[in-house]
Amino acid sequence: MQTLEVDLGDRSYPIHIGPGLLGKLDLLTPHIHGNQVMIVSNETVAPLYLEQVKAGCASYQCDVVILPDGEVFKTLESVNLIFDGLLKARHNRTTTLIALGGGVVGDITGFAAASYQRGVNFIQIPTTLLSQVDSSVGGKTGVNHALGKNMIGAFHQPQCVIADTETLNTLPIRELRAGFAEVIKYGLICDAPFFDWLEQNCESVLACDTAALVYTLQRSCQNKALVVAQDERESGIRAILNLGHTFGHAIETAQGYGNWLHGEAVAAGMVMAVDLSARLGWISAGDSQRSRALIEASGLPALPPEDMTAEQFMELMAVDKKVLDGALRLVLMKAIGDAVITSEFDVQALADTFAAGDGLCA
Amino acid sequence: MQTLEVDLGDRSYPIHIGPGLLGKLDLLTPHIHGNQVMIVSNETVAPLYLEQVKAGCASYQCDVVILPDGEVFKTLESVNLIFDGLLKARHNRTTTLIALGGGVVGDITGFAAASYQRGVNFIQIPTTLLSQVDSSVGGKTGVNHALGKNMIGAFHQPQCVIADTETLNTLPIRELRAGFAEVIKYGLICDAPFFDWLEQNCESVLACDTAALVYTLQRSCQNKALVVAQDERESGIRAILNLGHTFGHAIETAQGYGNWLHGEAVAAGMVMAVDLSARLGWISAGDSQRSRALIEASGLPALPPEDMTAEQFMELMAVDKKVLDGALRLVLMKAIGDAVITSEFDVQALADTFAAGDGLCA
Repeated sequence: MQTLEVDLGDRSYPIHIGPGLLGKLDLLTPHIHGNQVMIVSNETVAPLYLEQVKAGCASYQCDVVILPDGEVFKTLESVNLIFDGLLKARHNRTTTLIALGGGVVGDITGFAAASYQRGVNFIQIPTTLLSQVDSSVGGKTGVNHALGKNMIGAFHQPQCVIADTETLNTLPIRELRAGFAEVIKYGLICDAPFFDWLEQNCESVLACDTAALVYTLQRSCQNKALVVAQDERESGIRAILNLGHTFGHAIETAQGYGNWLHGEAVAAGMVMAVDLSARLGWISAGDSQRSRALIEASGLPALPPEDMTAEQFMELMAVDKKVLDGALRLVLMKAIGDAVITSEFDVQALADTFAAGDGLCA
Repeated sequence: MQTLEVDLGDRSYPIHIGPGLLGKLDLLTPHIHGNQVMIVSNETVAPLYLEQVKAGCASYQCDVVILPDGEVFKTLESVNLIFDGLLKARHNRTTTLIALGGGVVGDITGFAAASYQRGVNFIQIPTTLLSQVDSSVGGKTGVNHALGKNMIGAFHQPQCVIADTETLNTLPIRELRAGFAEVIKYGLICDAPFFDWLEQNCESVLACDTAALVYTLQRSCQNKALVVAQDERESGIRAILNLGHTFGHAIETAQGYGNWLHGEAVAAGMVMAVDLSARLGWISAGDSQRSRALIEASGLPALPPEDMTAEQFMELMAVDKKVLDGALRLVLMKAIGDAVITSEFDVQALADTFAAGDGLCA
């Protein structure tokens, strides 16, 4: 087992990474300070792992809320279901919530923990690659509103994160790949040696080789933790984690949420960001080609949907309006391992990227 | 105008107190950092004061949400109405919410500010005595749940509080008195000289004499700010602010919320807490009698409802269960200006207080 520390002063917490951690009582108990726990999971994950986690909580009053599965249920109504469960079972301010599932369960549960009786403790047990390397680290919690994604939430750090690599064995390969897009992102934005390693080892990771997974999680979480420690509430540098996300959101919106997985859209978005960086002369052709090649080798989409036009991207990224305000900020690349947040780029180059088709990062 | 500072490190903020502050643009603008504001008020207060506050926001994109009036609307649904308004008018993370109204509006708006896009700024403009001396100071925000009051919320400090004493001219006298109960509380728990002053000046305060009101607000907020600065998240000493509240909640529950105003229940509850302290030999008969006398002189109920039995108090305060656990903690009195939080008291004395009838603090 590997353990990292997210360094946030009195809100610091450990991330435990390894196989077979779900049943390990001694990882949970140091972080449960009262005598009550509430496990929140969903209909897909609960049948697989709930009993193991419940067994680890046998010495506490342990209650369970099972949410329906899917981003469409990431709503205030789901948060309220958790409040119902907590109040019916009379959980007090010393209770600990445990999020068992992917990013949606983690985000909902974290926000419920932030808001129940003005804040109680919670523990993240992420069971997807995406949530293990991204959403469970950094304290962003929240839900969607009919008028916007992630519009309601709180920054609320967990007491600890337990990432059991064995839970990835039951994850559909498409979701594994989507999570891997965020892994590649860490290499691109701030960790060139890790990018090199990923080029050599992406097959082992995607085959769920335990050692390769542990190293991947460890390195990814370390990178994210370093960024978050510098800027917990995203007033500056933390936005670097959004490489590919502005392009990706345009793709997700155009295709309708759920048709492209978030990680798939981010993968194609990263190729677009790298392409734009190359057109601006900021990143070498070699690094640009390597970026696209790794994404393709991982089985991720390296190109946006064929039917998406430059005009659609312009509109969905509000380029005309935002560029006039000087406010479209993108994460772009100087080299593999070196990203910048900037609004200073030639808009014509952006238009060329939108129109590049299969010529991205060529 | 008087200005106090609530000392909470990088979350410190000023409280401005005085007559005619609503129209003063220069009090608002230093605390609005973006170019958008959202004023939240209710159906009762908006017709009286909204235009003045809007005039002060003329140089910003200014939107308004008007909530129905009453504690029954202190719900997640009302918070969601604010989110709807913010998203429809495309408010971004630099927006500032302004709560214009009593404690309910302040609590709802504060929680909306805590949760919109994971936290935006807000300003409190309290328009009732209760909210000016109590709920607008200290950062407790939140809403009720069908299964419990104030069960959902956040600690979220405002950018500033603007307490305009002229808004009290339109407040019904019963509500003014109810707010005054919390004023008396500050004298009782930590400020004997203020208690002396209140004995001499309670008539002027309740007649809305400006100088008397300004001094009352200033001294009350100062006392609350000192307590909150020591214990922002109520892990200890902040609970001292709950003098009379445990008894008071039992009264509110027994009578149905709304029949007794919160401040009225707290007033009778404080007499009960003082009575118990006297039975324990902790506070002198003289101080005990003065406490009841000031509450009576203010036109507040000094006794619980006649039809409430000792058994009802026992049950509603969960005395039997909690005392067995050693967990019923009460705020009790050593002298006027000197309160303690304790679970170590003779349960028979508590039973005698419940049974005392008109003999409380005799």
